[in-house]
Amino acid sequence: MEYAFSSRISALQPSAIREILKVTSNPGVISLAAGNPSPETFPAKDMAEIAAEIFEKRFADALQYGVSEGYDPLRRVTAERLREKFSVGRDFDDLIIVSGGQQGIELSAKCFANEGDVILCEEPSFIGALNALRSYGVRLMAVPCGPQGMDMGALERILAETPRVKLIYTIPTFQNPSGVTMPLESRRRMLALAEKHGVMILEDNPYFELRYDGQYVPPIKSLDAAGRVIYCGSYSKIIAPGIRLGFVCAPKAVIAKLTVAKQVSDVHSNLFFQMLVCEYLETRDLDAHIAQSRALYKEKLERMTSALREHAPMLDFTAPQGGLFLWCVLPGGLDGAEFCRRMGGKGVAAVPGASFLVDEGAGSPAIRLNFSLPSARQIDAGCARIGETLKECLGERQ
Amino acid sequence: MEYAFSSRISALQPSAIREILKVTSNPGVISLAAGNPSPETFPAKDMAEIAAEIFEKRFADALQYGVSEGYDPLRRVTAERLREKFSVGRDFDDLIIVSGGQQGIELSAKCFANEGDVILCEEPSFIGALNALRSYGVRLMAVPCGPQGMDMGALERILAETPRVKLIYTIPTFQNPSGVTMPLESRRRMLALAEKHGVMILEDNPYFELRYDGQYVPPIKSLDAAGRVIYCGSYSKIIAPGIRLGFVCAPKAVIAKLTVAKQVSDVHSNLFFQMLVCEYLETRDLDAHIAQSRALYKEKLERMTSALREHAPMLDFTAPQGGLFLWCVLPGGLDGAEFCRRMGGKGVAAVPGASFLVDEGAGSPAIRLNFSLPSARQIDAGCARIGETLKECLGERQ
Repeated sequence: MEYAFSSRISALQPSAIREILKVTSNPGVISLAAGNPSPETFPAKDMAEIAAEIFEKRFADALQYGVSEGYDPLRRVTAERLREKFSVGRDFDDLIIVSGGQQGIELSAKCFANEGDVILCEEPSFIGALNALRSYGVRLMAVPCGPQGMDMGALERILAETPRVKLIYTIPTFQNPSGVTMPLESRRRMLALAEKHGVMILEDNPYFELRYDGQYVPPIKSLDAAGRVIYCGSYSKIIAPGIRLGFVCAPKAVIAKLTVAKQVSDVHSNLFFQMLVCEYLETRDLDAHIAQSRALYKEKLERMTSALREHAPMLDFTAPQGGLFLWCVLPGGLDGAEFCRRMGGKGVAAVPGASFLVDEGAGSPAIRLNFSLPSARQIDAGCARIGETLKECLGERQ
Repeated sequence: MEYAFSSRISALQPSAIREILKVTSNPGVISLAAGNPSPETFPAKDMAEIAAEIFEKRFADALQYGVSEGYDPLRRVTAERLREKFSVGRDFDDLIIVSGGQQGIELSAKCFANEGDVILCEEPSFIGALNALRSYGVRLMAVPCGPQGMDMGALERILAETPRVKLIYTIPTFQNPSGVTMPLESRRRMLALAEKHGVMILEDNPYFELRYDGQYVPPIKSLDAAGRVIYCGSYSKIIAPGIRLGFVCAPKAVIAKLTVAKQVSDVHSNLFFQMLVCEYLETRDLDAHIAQSRALYKEKLERMTSALREHAPMLDFTAPQGGLFLWCVLPGGLDGAEFCRRMGGKGVAAVPGASFLVDEGAGSPAIRLNFSLPSARQIDAGCARIGETLKECLGERQ
């Protein structure tokens, strides 16, 4: 039977990454394709202790309906940490708990964008966010990017020339997939441009506590004196993603609308884990925990860059200062999608760069590699096969 | 600062129920306003045992990212139970795990309704669903209802006269808020009308396993040979709501679109509790557990109807055969909203009937009472105060 789906959803395709991840569930495959944190970093023992206590003493609250803005003590402790450590959130701001950073982006699109409105984004950018924005019938427009992230001159021109721009979507720190971090000066300029043109900035910042090198750069939201920035954060990369908990910090009027949208979307996020994460934040040392994760990921990143320099010296990449991804450009005009297909045949999964473009049909000579999930041995073996495959492809060209 | 919110969200108000529930968090208040199951029914001990086992042996999977359609073994065991016990789901159907029944409704609206499309619904109906539908800019249209639920003659006329009808939204069993159950013959006729007019039925069925009296009536979905019904179910009322787990059973092409919408909405539902509920279904006796809940709620319902007959004999109600709500019509043309305000002043919360109307501004002489959450003593005291308040109001009229 034919179904008359809405036009917004008819246009949306399952993401290429999703299809790749299905392949990687095959146990023989070395996956460099995921965006998953390492399970070694999950604080399972602490979580188990807290869960047992909640089941024993507070189950009547933890298993019951809660309010849409989230468990109040978790909202408070999250807001305090953001403010004290990162200067994120002012007196005019408020905070809502959401089901992962993804939901923060989706609800923001729902609350701000009418069909046909324009949303500006980096290119390449996070496919899950681009699809969430697309699912409200908006027109995505890529702003050119370089090694310093979004090109502010280009952003200024586009804002001056383009009607109906509602949001600038950005991942300013350890960007997914490029790994690039936008310098402070660009952040200030983006904010000034947003104020001038009456546009909101949607700052997606899930990775920024995972810095392995270089100097701290403050979130755009910490500079936001005018209430122009919607800040999406997540506990996925610093505690665990399967619990689906994130947060949005934004001006009170915005949080009020996000709360209405959240209420009709799923009433509230899993309350048991909201209470569990709150207890974890109050009684354990999250900063020490994150420091351990950083040490592990720094090692894995160094392992991957060394292995690539050894096995695939013709590959072009800049090691990121943090995050989960290494963005590599193939030599000799090779196509990323064709290369990933070939690698798939050798039991190594990676994501082609084209998956992160506004126009997914356009070609890209890049591939995205993840270093947080694979073991050291898998990193070595995967990079060796990348080298072999590159040599084959380049050999065939001659 | 003024923000340029989307028109779909600007039109949406926080629901009246939400505001009432905020008041009821005051510990002195007797709340007959909630839609909450009783925490006495939460299988916390079994859940604690299973949680401990998952933290010990399977935390690396349970805390990691999962797939958007849900944890495969939970999908399978949920689909099998639906099929074997209730004949819900055929070979052309598939099933997705969602974050509560609410999300099933919201995703269905997103996948089917363009702005300006018409969705038909019962009146009164569940405010959370009506707002989810409204949040996609659709036009809600009420079909007249009687003691047998939606009037099929009226539905036939409306379908013949109204262009752009996309969905019929119905809670056919122990309807929220009216408590009414649609007879089998109406279900058959609704299905035939949906087929004739190429319209989908969104069957919201969270209460149907909570029957205390009368004969089983099969879900509309069990009669659906043509693939016209999207079936939303929930574990909220039979296990616990705070874990936010429900499911949608619908034709494969529909589930494929819902999965894309789910992926951009929150990636997937809390995976830890998906695994926990799966284990619960596989190793504990859910049917026996539900039988216990039914016995408890039957007792509470009887307590409430007796107390009302004693203290407020002038109140007009029909005891429902199941569910969580008692719908009462006030005598003498009293207004439900005014009555609830007065009751609030006496420390008893109830929901005015007008909250459940398509046009919330219209008046209603009804109020909705919940009997699952309050204790027997609270039921008695609440009903006594309803009686007093009624006498006062009617006295003032003379």
